[in-house]
Amino acid sequence: MATKRAEILCIGTEILMGDIVNTNAAYIAKELTNLGIAMYHQTVVGDNPKRLKESLELAFSRSDIVITTGGLGPTYDDLSKETIAAYFGRKLLMDEESLQSVIEFHEKLNIPMPENNKKQALMPEGSVIFPNPNGTAPGCAIEHDGKTAIMLPGPPREMAPMFDHYVVPFLLKDSGKVLLSHNLHFYGIGESLLETKLHDLMEKSQNPTVAPYAKTGEVMVRVSAMAKDAAEAEQMMEPIIGEIKETVGEFLYGIDVGDLQTATVRTLKAKGLRAATAESCTGGYVSKRLTEVNGSSSVFECGVCTYSNRMKRQLLGVKEFTLQKFSAVSPETAAEMAAGVRKLSGAHIGVAVTGNAGPEPSEGKPVGLVYIAVDSEWHKDVFEMNINRRDENLREMIRYLASSRAIYMLLKTAEQFQGNSEAVK
Amino acid sequence: MATKRAEILCIGTEILMGDIVNTNAAYIAKELTNLGIAMYHQTVVGDNPKRLKESLELAFSRSDIVITTGGLGPTYDDLSKETIAAYFGRKLLMDEESLQSVIEFHEKLNIPMPENNKKQALMPEGSVIFPNPNGTAPGCAIEHDGKTAIMLPGPPREMAPMFDHYVVPFLLKDSGKVLLSHNLHFYGIGESLLETKLHDLMEKSQNPTVAPYAKTGEVMVRVSAMAKDAAEAEQMMEPIIGEIKETVGEFLYGIDVGDLQTATVRTLKAKGLRAATAESCTGGYVSKRLTEVNGSSSVFECGVCTYSNRMKRQLLGVKEFTLQKFSAVSPETAAEMAAGVRKLSGAHIGVAVTGNAGPEPSEGKPVGLVYIAVDSEWHKDVFEMNINRRDENLREMIRYLASSRAIYMLLKTAEQFQGNSEAVK
Repeated sequence: MATKRAEILCIGTEILMGDIVNTNAAYIAKELTNLGIAMYHQTVVGDNPKRLKESLELAFSRSDIVITTGGLGPTYDDLSKETIAAYFGRKLLMDEESLQSVIEFHEKLNIPMPENNKKQALMPEGSVIFPNPNGTAPGCAIEHDGKTAIMLPGPPREMAPMFDHYVVPFLLKDSGKVLLSHNLHFYGIGESLLETKLHDLMEKSQNPTVAPYAKTGEVMVRVSAMAKDAAEAEQMMEPIIGEIKETVGEFLYGIDVGDLQTATVRTLKAKGLRAATAESCTGGYVSKRLTEVNGSSSVFECGVCTYSNRMKRQLLGVKEFTLQKFSAVSPETAAEMAAGVRKLSGAHIGVAVTGNAGPEPSEGKPVGLVYIAVDSEWHKDVFEMNINRRDENLREMIRYLASSRAIYMLLKTAEQFQGNSEAVK
Repeated sequence: MATKRAEILCIGTEILMGDIVNTNAAYIAKELTNLGIAMYHQTVVGDNPKRLKESLELAFSRSDIVITTGGLGPTYDDLSKETIAAYFGRKLLMDEESLQSVIEFHEKLNIPMPENNKKQALMPEGSVIFPNPNGTAPGCAIEHDGKTAIMLPGPPREMAPMFDHYVVPFLLKDSGKVLLSHNLHFYGIGESLLETKLHDLMEKSQNPTVAPYAKTGEVMVRVSAMAKDAAEAEQMMEPIIGEIKETVGEFLYGIDVGDLQTATVRTLKAKGLRAATAESCTGGYVSKRLTEVNGSSSVFECGVCTYSNRMKRQLLGVKEFTLQKFSAVSPETAAEMAAGVRKLSGAHIGVAVTGNAGPEPSEGKPVGLVYIAVDSEWHKDVFEMNINRRDENLREMIRYLASSRAIYMLLKTAEQFQGNSEAVK
């Protein structure tokens, strides 16, 4: 199969006017890259039938597949299906199954269905229909003379699952293949170093593909295989994942775990452990991130944010001597905070952050100096960070990176635990 | 002056491949709307000179002004200036001032300057140069035969300030006008209701313009005036802002204040007050947001996250009776938590959140039921929220909206304070 060429056409005056950031284009572009489909253009046009028609003609003059987002809504200015069906010389017909699901959607939410919502079930004649469990507008595809138009809804939370569940198999249908991925999550190694270490592997990997995705303070590597079935895809990925583990396994904190806090909550739960946090410069960022995770209540005992020295002493039992001699931003204070919150809460692990998030140096400590401590019966540690990078919002960056390190240290401490959690304090 | 038509051409393989979400397009689109410049197309192309040239030709065939982002970097595939200068038949010349600033930029960061960074100071002959204090690549503009090309760097934190400081005046230079804006921040009124109430004002306002911007849980209205100088612009905006205040002033929490937490920290500081937080379902979100603000340490005494009932009793002194009779998710518990954290910390105001952020009902309380309480000598209050909307990430939504309400109640409590903060507990 020759490489197909696709492009993305996002339709919507809200995007054109800048009221909405176009995250759909990035999402679809990534997925197409994964599928090995080439893509050279992305375009945005407003809800204007003339310009939409022109853009469509231009797109099909240079690409085989045009993927549109938006313009499937119930109002008069939602014209994607009308314009694209006309381009292919197709009529719009009422699709009974789609109509039923639009009706059911409103019934489930217990809200009356406006009459014009029926318009959303009008589909181009002979199109492949993609159901939308997260909204009212189904998507669809028209194939004609080697050209394919794929129409998807605008809201990202409707578009993305529809793409994953229906569009990917649709795009792969002629190949008879499935696409499977695993996400490998790394902490403690920068993107460029990781890329250098995995360079040869990434270069030579066509299928499975190996692609890094940088997130602030961590890196994810996605391994994707296209194969005739899931078992074959898994088999193809296994040696590649093995090779990655051999090269940078020490930084791997999980596979398909979502993020640091989810991995940490899962590990705490699996080990029967509870944690508590004491935060100064992060001001609740660590506890906020841990409690984002569903079910965190069973592993998170409590968190305290002690900005003032008085509260560090009063709540956490940090010694006046320590604060005087070493200052609030010191490894000694961090360690006493971690021990203090563990004692206060009765949790198995205490984790503490103290530092200077800026904007000004404080008590002689530079902006970006942060100490993070963990305390448990089986493991104690203090880590020093010096976060000094050019960033418009350095304060947020320092707080975020420090909270990531704290969560990571909590995860590592939980992983080390081997005993019976009922038996330790 | 006839309305000019502009379009945006974003250049970069990272955007095309979906590695970066194109926030620049939305930013520029908003600014152009503010300036009354029409915009009908946005395009993304990769770092490919042939396709860049084609896109440029297409863009100038339908627009007067083409604004590019990206491709100003030091590497061989950064080709925006080369391609656009060639399109206009201009040579690239070394601009000594830009070269000096690239050199100084590296000196300031104390890093050696790679030789190819000099390329960034090569500017099209006869172009207007836009300095870049936040990076190494200056921007520039070429005007020729009624067509204008504006080239801006790709990183948003370099592009956005350059746009505000240099491109806006450049675009206004022929008009001899300046553009000034005020941002009015609202809480407690939905975007659609606010739009309905301000509909006539928004319709009739050409200059100043009145435009709403929705944020999760709040709304901002931007009033912008174009005038011959700042004084005239202010004078034009004054009656409009007055009219808005008359209509929806009860929901206005600040003008040009940034966000809820910044407004709150400023008010606390101005009144000499200190606050403390007690959080259950928000797990530190309130304290995290308050401590985001520079200088919050002087007004934030401490925060506690008491997920477990035991910690609610032990740290905050919530009564066993209250937890048993009314449950942890109740107005009674919220009020005792707020009073408890005020007592614990010695702060002037305590604010507390308790609720069920999901995913499952708990102790018979539905997902999305949250109680928020404030406690001070001069004002006590409890607020009930029922957050039940369709959202992919309802837990995050509940936690965010509840934290906003808590910060808002803290702000309102601080605003009500009239006395001497030294005299109250």
